[in-house]
Amino acid sequence: MSSALSRTQLHPSTVIYACADLLEKVRSTTPLVQCVTNSVVTNMTANALLAVGATPAMVDIPIEAAQFTAAADGLLINLGTPHEEQRAAIVEAATAAAAHDTPWVLDPVAVGVLSVRTALARQLLNNRPTAIRGNPSEIIALAGAGSGGRGTDSAHGVDEATHAAHTLCDATGAIIAVSGPRDLITDGGTDLLLANGTPLLTKITGGGCALGAMTAAFLAVGRATPLHATAAATLVYTVAAQRAATRASGPGSFQVAFMDELADIAPETIAAQAVIV
Amino acid sequence: MSSALSRTQLHPSTVIYACADLLEKVRSTTPLVQCVTNSVVTNMTANALLAVGATPAMVDIPIEAAQFTAAADGLLINLGTPHEEQRAAIVEAATAAAAHDTPWVLDPVAVGVLSVRTALARQLLNNRPTAIRGNPSEIIALAGAGSGGRGTDSAHGVDEATHAAHTLCDATGAIIAVSGPRDLITDGGTDLLLANGTPLLTKITGGGCALGAMTAAFLAVGRATPLHATAAATLVYTVAAQRAATRASGPGSFQVAFMDELADIAPETIAAQAVIV
Amino acid sequence: MSSALSRTQLHPSTVIYACADLLEKVRSTTPLVQCVTNSVVTNMTANALLAVGATPAMVDIPIEAAQFTAAADGLLINLGTPHEEQRAAIVEAATAAAAHDTPWVLDPVAVGVLSVRTALARQLLNNRPTAIRGNPSEIIALAGAGSGGRGTDSAHGVDEATHAAHTLCDATGAIIAVSGPRDLITDGGTDLLLANGTPLLTKITGGGCALGAMTAAFLAVGRATPLHATAAATLVYTVAAQRAATRASGPGSFQVAFMDELADIAPETIAAQAVIV
Repeated sequence: MSSALSRTQLHPSTVIYACADLLEKVRSTTPLVQCVTNSVVTNMTANALLAVGATPAMVDIPIEAAQFTAAADGLLINLGTPHEEQRAAIVEAATAAAAHDTPWVLDPVAVGVLSVRTALARQLLNNRPTAIRGNPSEIIALAGAGSGGRGTDSAHGVDEATHAAHTLCDATGAIIAVSGPRDLITDGGTDLLLANGTPLLTKITGGGCALGAMTAAFLAVGRATPLHATAAATLVYTVAAQRAATRASGPGSFQVAFMDELADIAPETIAAQAVIV
Repeated sequence: MSSALSRTQLHPSTVIYACADLLEKVRSTTPLVQCVTNSVVTNMTANALLAVGATPAMVDIPIEAAQFTAAADGLLINLGTPHEEQRAAIVEAATAAAAHDTPWVLDPVAVGVLSVRTALARQLLNNRPTAIRGNPSEIIALAGAGSGGRGTDSAHGVDEATHAAHTLCDATGAIIAVSGPRDLITDGGTDLLLANGTPLLTKITGGGCALGAMTAAFLAVGRATPLHATAAATLVYTVAAQRAATRASGPGSFQVAFMDELADIAPETIAAQAVIV
Repeated sequence: MSSALSRTQLHPSTVIYACADLLEKVRSTTPLVQCVTNSVVTNMTANALLAVGATPAMVDIPIEAAQFTAAADGLLINLGTPHEEQRAAIVEAATAAAAHDTPWVLDPVAVGVLSVRTALARQLLNNRPTAIRGNPSEIIALAGAGSGGRGTDSAHGVDEATHAAHTLCDATGAIIAVSGPRDLITDGGTDLLLANGTPLLTKITGGGCALGAMTAAFLAVGRATPLHATAAATLVYTVAAQRAATRASGPGSFQVAFMDELADIAPETIAAQAVIV
C-alpha cells in the first residue's frame, strides 16, 4: 500500500473482536517468543510475556540465536544495549526469522541518537520485520526523516511521526506502531489511533520495550492479520496499564499491579475500555 | 551409589529437622554465594539470596571469577545466557570450585535445546558439581537420555526424569534436583519427593534459577549433608512461595510477597507446611 | 582542600535548603543521566532515576558511550560487573565526561577485592570524577589504605573510612560519599554526617548502586555546589527509603514502596525528617 493512497478506517468493533480472539489464542497456545533485548528490561519483558500467557526465551548469543529462531513462534529484536556479541546474534536471528517466515518485531531504541544501533537498524530492515515499534523520534529517524530523541525519550509527538510511519510502511512492508499518549498503528493504508494507557508507563523503565515483546507474541498467533495483531497487543497492554494505574500509589506499585492485570485481564474488559479514535 | 540399588527412604522428620537447622545457619553465617547467572534473573536471584539471609555476589568476568570462587562459600553456575566472556568465567569458576572444594550448583538451562550451552554443560560435569538443578527435560538431556524441552519449559514430567536423574548421580556424584509440581531430590540411593510450591512460580521468570542459587547457599552451610541441604533449599523456597501465593492477586504481587516470605519464614512454618511424599 | 586543615561544619538548614532546591530542579529539568552500570541493578537504577524525576539512559558500548556522554547531563560509572566491552565503554565515557565537563560519579563496587576492577578504578581517577560513592571498605581500598570488603559488603564502619575519604578528596578533588548506617559526605574540608535510611536498603540488591545514579542526577543540576548536591541525593534517597520501610513487610514490599516514595517525596518531608549529625 502506498502512503499516497487515501487512508481507510477499520471499524473499532472489528479491532476489538480481533483483540479478544488473539488474546484467547495467546493464552491457549502459549507462543514461544524469543527476545533479543537490552540488559535493562530483560526481566520485566519476560515477566510481561509470562503474565499475558506467552513463553519468553532470551536467547541472544551467536549460533544459539539462529537455532532458536528456527523453532520460535515469534521474535523480538530490541536495540537498547546492543553489545558486540549480541549484534552478531541479532543479525543471525533476523536472518533466520526471514528464512523461516517467523514473525518478528524490531524495536529501534534510540536510533537516530547513537551511531552503532542506527547502522544496525537500517541493515535489519532488509530482513523484513513484520512490525516496527518505536517512539515518534525513533520512527522519524528510522525513516530517514530527522534525527532522534533525547536518549530514550521522544522529542516529537505521535502526529509528527505519521508521515514517517507511512514512509516506513512503504519501504519495508512492516506494520508500524508509534507509541505515545495516543498510539498509531498503521500498515500504510489503514491508520488506527488507540488512546488507552497511562503516563505511569513512562515512569518505569521498559514500558515501551515490553510492548515490543507483547507485539511479537500477538503476531505469533495472528500472523495472517498483522495490523490487527499489532493493534491487539497495544490494546491489551495499554488497557491493562490503565487499569493498574487506578490501583497504584506510584511507579513501584504500578509495575506490580500491571503484571497482575496482564495476567488477569478479560477480553470483555478490553472491549469495554478500549478507546479507538 | 548405583541406580541399580534399591532406593532407601528418609523419614520426613529427618529432612525437616535438617531444613530448620540449615535455615538458621544460613541466617546466622550469611554465606557468600557467587552467582554466574543469566542476564534475565540476576536481580531476582540476588534479592532471593539476600531475603533468605545469604550474601550474593555476581562475579562473572575472567580472572575475577576464579579470584572470587577461592573466597566464596558457594557457587552457582547458570547457563541461561552464556555469553562468550561469561563462558570463560564459568570454566574458571568451576575449576576453582573443584580445586578449593567449594560447593557448587550447575543449572543447565535449556540444555538439549541449544548447542553452545549443551557442550559447556557436559564439559562442566568434569568439575564435579555438588548439585545439579533443572527441569525434567534438562536433566534428561544432560543425562544423554533425550533432547530438551521447549525453550525453558520442560516437555517432560518429573516422573519421566527419575531414571535420568539416577544416571546423572552415578555419572557425576552430584545431588540431582528435578523441579516440577513435585520436586525430586536424589543422590542416586535415596529419593525425596517434595510437593510444596505454587503454579505462580512458573508465571514469573527466574522461578527455577533463583532456586539454584538458594541451593548453593544451603550447600555452603550444609556441605557435609548435600542431600539434606539441597532438599532444605527446595523446601524453604517452595513453602515460602506457597505462602506468598495465598496473598497474591497475580504474578506481580506474588513476586513481591515471595521476597517478603523468604525473609520472614520460620523453621516451624516449614515444619508445619512441608509436604514430603 | 587538604585533609590536614581542620574540618568545617555546614549548618544543617543550609544542606536542607539546598536539597529542597535541587530536588525541585531534578523534577523540573529531568536531567539526562547516562549509566554504565552492572547487570544486576540496571533495572532498579533506571527505575529509581525515573521515580525521582530524572531520565536514565544505559548506554554502555564503545563508540556510543562517548557519543552519549557528550550530550548527557550526568554520568554514572559503576564497576559491579565490568565486562571487557563495558570496560572499553567506561574509559571512553569517563574521558568524554572530563573533556565535556560532564559531572560524573564513580562507584567502585568491590574494589580491593577483585583485580580487574581495582586497576580500572585507579585508572579512572585520572578522569577527575566529580564524586565517588562507595561503602567504607571500597573507599579505604581505593585510597590505597587497605584491602576491600567481603564481596559487596563492607568489612569496615563509616568512621574507619573517614581518613581514607579525606585522602581521596586530596588526591582526586572529588566529593567522597561513604555509605553506611551513617553516610559521610566530604569534600576534604567539610564533613557531613547524614543519619537517615533503613537496614532494608542492605536487604535488596542495588541499594547502594542506585544511590550512585541518584548522585549523578543531583550533580547534573547542582554542579556548582557538588558537596551539597551529593548530600542532597543521599538525603532524598535515604529519607524516601526510611519512609518506605515503615510501610513494608519485608524486602519485596520495601522495594515497591521505595520507588513510590521516591516519586512522591516532598521537599518539606525531607526537611522534617532529615537527620544531619
